[in-house]
Amino acid sequence: MPEALQQLIRSLSRLPGIGRRTAERMAYRLLLRNQDLLKELIVSLERAGNEIVLCSRCGNLTAVDRDPCLICRNPKRTSKVLCVVEGAPDIQVIEQAGSFPGKYYCLRGKISPMQDETVTRELIEKLLLRIEADGVEEVMLGLNTDVESDATASLLGDVLKPLGIKVTRLAFGLPAGSGLAYSDPETLKRAMKGRQEVM
Amino acid sequence: MPEALQQLIRSLSRLPGIGRRTAERMAYRLLLRNQDLLKELIVSLERAGNEIVLCSRCGNLTAVDRDPCLICRNPKRTSKVLCVVEGAPDIQVIEQAGSFPGKYYCLRGKISPMQDETVTRELIEKLLLRIEADGVEEVMLGLNTDVESDATASLLGDVLKPLGIKVTRLAFGLPAGSGLAYSDPETLKRAMKGRQEVM
Repeated sequence: MPEALQQLIRSLSRLPGIGRRTAERMAYRLLLRNQDLLKELIVSLERAGNEIVLCSRCGNLTAVDRDPCLICRNPKRTSKVLCVVEGAPDIQVIEQAGSFPGKYYCLRGKISPMQDETVTRELIEKLLLRIEADGVEEVMLGLNTDVESDATASLLGDVLKPLGIKVTRLAFGLPAGSGLAYSDPETLKRAMKGRQEVM
Repeated sequence: MPEALQQLIRSLSRLPGIGRRTAERMAYRLLLRNQDLLKELIVSLERAGNEIVLCSRCGNLTAVDRDPCLICRNPKRTSKVLCVVEGAPDIQVIEQAGSFPGKYYCLRGKISPMQDETVTRELIEKLLLRIEADGVEEVMLGLNTDVESDATASLLGDVLKPLGIKVTRLAFGLPAGSGLAYSDPETLKRAMKGRQEVM
């Protein structure tokens, strides 16, 4: 196999979720049947690499000539409710749900008792700066549901509540459109704990 | 979502086996966590696009400065046995099995009764030129196992056998390492038809 082909397969298989076989299939497709897609990919990657940066306010991906990003600059969105997420992809998912009226803040790192305290303190201080600057009244935690995220949630609660800020977290429970029989014990336990009275 | 990000997601989701969600995950990974992979991909794609061509003798992928390819030029491989495959990826798979001593020829198209006769005739004529030039004695058909490949096999048999060329096809049967209970009826039917006496 030519070295340039091997290199392409190696690079493709470094993409998330792509094994060796899929990378081979992609490389052959690009070279044998889809030279136009090969060229298009080069252009798209170069353009994204040059034009996309992290929003200096929220940490979401944004165009280099639109920093702060469109969400941060949207005057129709309230700055009083701040959704704190772990990563930029989470913002995309919440936006697709379409009902969040506030703004975002991306932690860009874990706030965890297991990690170096200086890192944690720096992350929290940055968040506090944002909260003060915007006069945030409610922090809604849009965190994952693993143990580390639970630790992050309780740590942020401990820091923010004494400042008079309301701290909420996305509800745990059964996912929509899924059968009760398919849910795992942990999800069910949390759904029971959060049960609500039927009106 | 910035247009450059949307464009990258669109391009990535054109790759085989990549849906919208996976393409999004890739794009975020490339931009948020793996800018070095983004740059590496551009280099690999450009290099492959510039350096890889089809071997003018067999149709396999080869470096532009190695045409004919290393297999076609290997004096230790016999030219008397020619393996005819449908696409270049098939050559790679047969090479990995490691026991084929001959050379390859890639049809680069279907030879099918359903398709324009001129196309079929041209494909066959090119193959005949190669067979004559090399004095091929056996053509081993390394074709797929669908109906169209069966049609290709019988058509090539009809053309080549009258010329005194032995025409063989890879055996059908049970795949190695798989349980009999998991095989489909068609595979089993073919395995029975091709059953061999135990020595």
